Amino acid sequence: MRVGVIGGGQLARMMIAPAVELGVEIRVLAEAEGMSAALATTAVGDYRDVATVLTFAREVDVVTFDHEHVPQEVLAALVDAGVAVHPGPDALRYAQDKLLMRERLAEFGLPVPDWARVTTEAEVDRFLAEHGGRAILKQPRGGYDGKGVRIVGSGAEASDWLTAGPLLIEELVDFRRELAQLVARRGSGDTVGWPLVETVQIDGVCSEVIAPAPHSRGRISEVAMDVALTIAERVGVIGVLAVELFETRDDRILINELAMRPHNSGHWTMDGSVTGQFEQHLRAVLDLPLGATGSLGEWAVMVNLLGGPNGETVVSRLPRALAEHPVVKVHTYGKAPRPGRKVGHVTAVGTDLDEVGYHARATAVHFRG
Amino acid sequence: MRVGVIGGGQLARMMIAPAVELGVEIRVLAEAEGMSAALATTAVGDYRDVATVLTFAREVDVVTFDHEHVPQEVLAALVDAGVAVHPGPDALRYAQDKLLMRERLAEFGLPVPDWARVTTEAEVDRFLAEHGGRAILKQPRGGYDGKGVRIVGSGAEASDWLTAGPLLIEELVDFRRELAQLVARRGSGDTVGWPLVETVQIDGVCSEVIAPAPHSRGRISEVAMDVALTIAERVGVIGVLAVELFETRDDRILINELAMRPHNSGHWTMDGSVTGQFEQHLRAVLDLPLGATGSLGEWAVMVNLLGGPNGETVVSRLPRALAEHPVVKVHTYGKAPRPGRKVGHVTAVGTDLDEVGYHARATAVHFRG
Repeated sequence: MRVGVIGGGQLARMMIAPAVELGVEIRVLAEAEGMSAALATTAVGDYRDVATVLTFAREVDVVTFDHEHVPQEVLAALVDAGVAVHPGPDALRYAQDKLLMRERLAEFGLPVPDWARVTTEAEVDRFLAEHGGRAILKQPRGGYDGKGVRIVGSGAEASDWLTAGPLLIEELVDFRRELAQLVARRGSGDTVGWPLVETVQIDGVCSEVIAPAPHSRGRISEVAMDVALTIAERVGVIGVLAVELFETRDDRILINELAMRPHNSGHWTMDGSVTGQFEQHLRAVLDLPLGATGSLGEWAVMVNLLGGPNGETVVSRLPRALAEHPVVKVHTYGKAPRPGRKVGHVTAVGTDLDEVGYHARATAVHFRG
Repeated sequence: MRVGVIGGGQLARMMIAPAVELGVEIRVLAEAEGMSAALATTAVGDYRDVATVLTFAREVDVVTFDHEHVPQEVLAALVDAGVAVHPGPDALRYAQDKLLMRERLAEFGLPVPDWARVTTEAEVDRFLAEHGGRAILKQPRGGYDGKGVRIVGSGAEASDWLTAGPLLIEELVDFRRELAQLVARRGSGDTVGWPLVETVQIDGVCSEVIAPAPHSRGRISEVAMDVALTIAERVGVIGVLAVELFETRDDRILINELAMRPHNSGHWTMDGSVTGQFEQHLRAVLDLPLGATGSLGEWAVMVNLLGGPNGETVVSRLPRALAEHPVVKVHTYGKAPRPGRKVGHVTAVGTDLDEVGYHARATAVHFRG
């Protein structure tokens, strides 16, 4: 069995370990030499180029992704050539276009924040007038980690983005906390879900994840699972699907974003679950039976390592971090540190949430600037 | 940090996953193309050839091993050239020569079966006369998985082996069960140990491992840990050390064999311990702080996959095995199946030993001929 991964970032890198253990040959089409997934990189080229991607795809049994940016025309060419592509273009376009996604989720009757498609400043102003004067403006394509998203208080503040086409505008949700629900669906249709988690964002970037979500048990976790499985099934996702959610102060769940691939909110599963999300993604796209998603400890806390400003490498920080926190699992991404860049993550698993959180956070401090 | 591993077998293969996660570059000198550790293989050549090994070693920070067969003269050449070699030649020679090992362990006052160095049939007969007429004869070098070991009842039965040099003869130990104690020691001296495990051998080949050893708690586990740590420290092992033990019917522990590398009796740690033995071995040989060795479940059972006679691959058996046992972790070695060949292993972790054992054993059945 050969899996081809388009994109050489850390998500491709973290598929290497489970691929080796399962006996799946993994090949990566990377954007450049020396990226995170260098060990499995067998081709370097532009994922927007049909010929490059087709040549790569012909030598694997299934194509999957490190990111959601492969253009629809490239995906269509793969499908036309008989290549198995998972998740497929019909599913991926919802991950690629936030407006399309909002329309589709609304059709399914799933809970989303108030939103509108806006093409003029007047439409922005109208939405603002109905939603307290401030709202979230989103570019439909290409955003991640807070990019392509801004808070606006007038149509004029949207003018530069409006020249590029329609935008998504959403109410500013009065949320109590942010959650994420991770599920996986295999080709033949079976689905599994992991426990609902709480995510903590700083400046729009995921800082840490607590599994399971400490304050969101019971009905909220049932609704979250139902929402994620509904999306996976109705959109026809094959692979891992992450649904980022708001928990509102009036106890509702609203869908924020979704990702059709292993996701930062699921990194804790590598150390905290019987089946990690990267192994599960491989199983799903290869249409192998999905693995159990029980937790290995009562609590897991994952903290991202955000590269600091100085010239040290992530690995040079290992000795002190490992010495002080022998229970913590460190995952590095093989990337040069830059301020704010995700260069790895750490996870601690155990029975006491305070202790687990302390070890994960204190380890992460060692990797800062 | 670059680790060079001599030997391209499954032990090198299983170092790949933790190396990727820790951010350690792993390079393998394999005996041939397409071996288990092919993904990390950067050189193919004869580990008995000084020039081949030196060329490989010059591009890494530390050299370690997939097996214990690198000749002392090659190891000496590496050390002379200033290469960091862990475990070092002084430690490895005890793993390479069973007679030397028995002599050394006896010097340390550690518990070993009655033994003798024999060079003639008469000496064999004398030992047999003192030990009930039957004993275990071992070639000092090159044996593994029951090879190089036979039971003899007369000096004549030793004649073919005696022509090659001195042999080790040992009493047939009346053991109740077999155990193994795994420990690790880093360059700067710190040591850690995992729980004592019970191992089940069939025809001299490890069949399964139960962690922790269900019937050998308390004093026996303390003695086993003490024995293994004593060997690691006094022999100066750097890396993982596995000590195979007999538990006698009169409640003593006797040392059977030892291995200075990750070992089959420690494969369960990959899924059942905070720190798996392959990650620990990398930490130890790089002189990084050692990881915690707490267990992730109350019980872990590891069962070897012994390749069957027909032409199917290990991976072709995955769908049925994974479908029936979603909690089991499967590790494949990328080897073509042959009768009796170790082509992978599976581990189940959980709270109920009967259930854990059932899942691991029933999964393994799917991979038989």
